[in-house]
Amino acid sequence: MAYGEAVRYRGAGPKAAADLGAVAALVRTVGSADFRLPHTGFSTPAGIPAGAVTAEDASLIADLASQGKVRMHLTLTPQQLPDATSHNVIADLKGSEHPEQVVIVSGHLDSWDLGTGAIDDGAGVVVAMEAAEILQKLHLHPRRTLRVIAWMDEESGGAGSQQYTKDYSTEFAHYAAAIESDAGAAHPLGYSVKMSPHAAELLRPALGILQSFGGNALMPSSYPPGADISAMSEAGVPALGILQDGRHYFDYHHSAADTLDKVVPAELRENAAAMAVMGYALASMKDPLPR
Amino acid sequence: MAYGEAVRYRGAGPKAAADLGAVAALVRTVGSADFRLPHTGFSTPAGIPAGAVTAEDASLIADLASQGKVRMHLTLTPQQLPDATSHNVIADLKGSEHPEQVVIVSGHLDSWDLGTGAIDDGAGVVVAMEAAEILQKLHLHPRRTLRVIAWMDEESGGAGSQQYTKDYSTEFAHYAAAIESDAGAAHPLGYSVKMSPHAAELLRPALGILQSFGGNALMPSSYPPGADISAMSEAGVPALGILQDGRHYFDYHHSAADTLDKVVPAELRENAAAMAVMGYALASMKDPLPR
Repeated sequence: MAYGEAVRYRGAGPKAAADLGAVAALVRTVGSADFRLPHTGFSTPAGIPAGAVTAEDASLIADLASQGKVRMHLTLTPQQLPDATSHNVIADLKGSEHPEQVVIVSGHLDSWDLGTGAIDDGAGVVVAMEAAEILQKLHLHPRRTLRVIAWMDEESGGAGSQQYTKDYSTEFAHYAAAIESDAGAAHPLGYSVKMSPHAAELLRPALGILQSFGGNALMPSSYPPGADISAMSEAGVPALGILQDGRHYFDYHHSAADTLDKVVPAELRENAAAMAVMGYALASMKDPLPR
Repeated sequence: MAYGEAVRYRGAGPKAAADLGAVAALVRTVGSADFRLPHTGFSTPAGIPAGAVTAEDASLIADLASQGKVRMHLTLTPQQLPDATSHNVIADLKGSEHPEQVVIVSGHLDSWDLGTGAIDDGAGVVVAMEAAEILQKLHLHPRRTLRVIAWMDEESGGAGSQQYTKDYSTEFAHYAAAIESDAGAAHPLGYSVKMSPHAAELLRPALGILQSFGGNALMPSSYPPGADISAMSEAGVPALGILQDGRHYFDYHHSAADTLDKVVPAELRENAAAMAVMGYALASMKDPLPR
């Protein structure tokens, strides 16, 4: 939650500064670690140079500024390349009875290029793929369609989910549920959900299966629990996000240290189990979740 | 203790590799954090390029190497400048009865230049200075001389302490004790000591004073608890090192993240108290510690 509060300065700060006549804008790294590692991310185009400085440098600059005028020379190397065509990657395990009643299991494919995006959100994509893989391996044929989606462009504006909405929003009325995993690869505590309280209660039996590893928490959310599923959530589709243990997520997220070594295999397996169990339950229960 | 085991590869690895015909040598960062932060430090001159890689890159290289031949291009920027004259900085609070019986309180002044050396070992120098400052403020006049030393060149070979030994070793026979703080600025748990068991027992009353904040541990050590006081320790001078909580010391030590923001003021004050209480006790007790 602190991330949401802090990231407003990264997102809106440069534009607000430019509107007040600033020639450049710097924000303290939004990450939670203090290892000389600046945290990157989206900010509203502002027409002025904008960047993040490490926790160490932010403290130093604040201290110098408290003593008088501070002069800085900025060398910023990032560049924005022209838009290029890319794709959402979609695969269906077709439902045996109600193929039009889609249950989405998803993560996003793009990442910031400082690291390799292992926890944001390689893990989410892998876990969504694993859910379908597990169902196939177990020869399970759910009533509804399980749709695996690796979303494109979550990080810089959501072009992938916007295009999907443009192409398929007329079908959202039949969608049974949408799950996204976009909070890392750490131990799953359960699910964050945006749906009616009555619908949420119907998730209890599936969550009970995840209790063996402490993955059975149910946290109602007032906002869509996943950026790429927000349009369908707002259209009334019951929406779920895996609720990972987030204590160290923002230490690494959007930084050069988001690399595969941060993924603990046993915890990734728990996430795959959480996605497979919930995806299967939603696609197999007799009646779809009420809206 | 793991640092000592790991650092042997950094220290001796390049030379060992060169002796076997290597054209360059890389070591996995010896630090305990995984934030794309290589850890630097002394290694035996080897005549080949040598460097440290981050935890992330070490894992990646190891994984690639397990799959076949790995080709690397190294761009190493460090340079060794010619030796220059520098100084130990020494100040005495002269003893009222036995000025020749010196009690040393010390830290080291040099640091690796990636960060600013706040925890290694700015904190040690400050704590040693504070010990003398506290005695003066309290108008205490110990029997023996309290000598504050900010050692030069602990990191790259110990030229400062070697020169001191050359100049003053004939006086070591009269020295009462030597303390160095060179393990960071975190909460002090007590003291690591190299002295006879009988002498160590005589420290209990002073340690008891530090019990209010949990600083009263007494850990016998088989090696000198401080690089700069090792020569005098080996000459028989009772030697002490503040035993800081080291859980996060090697996360930051010898890296770009060793900066002032890592020092918690309340913990630094505890260290100053630990140094002042022990320094005063050693300089004021009726008889000097037995050897």
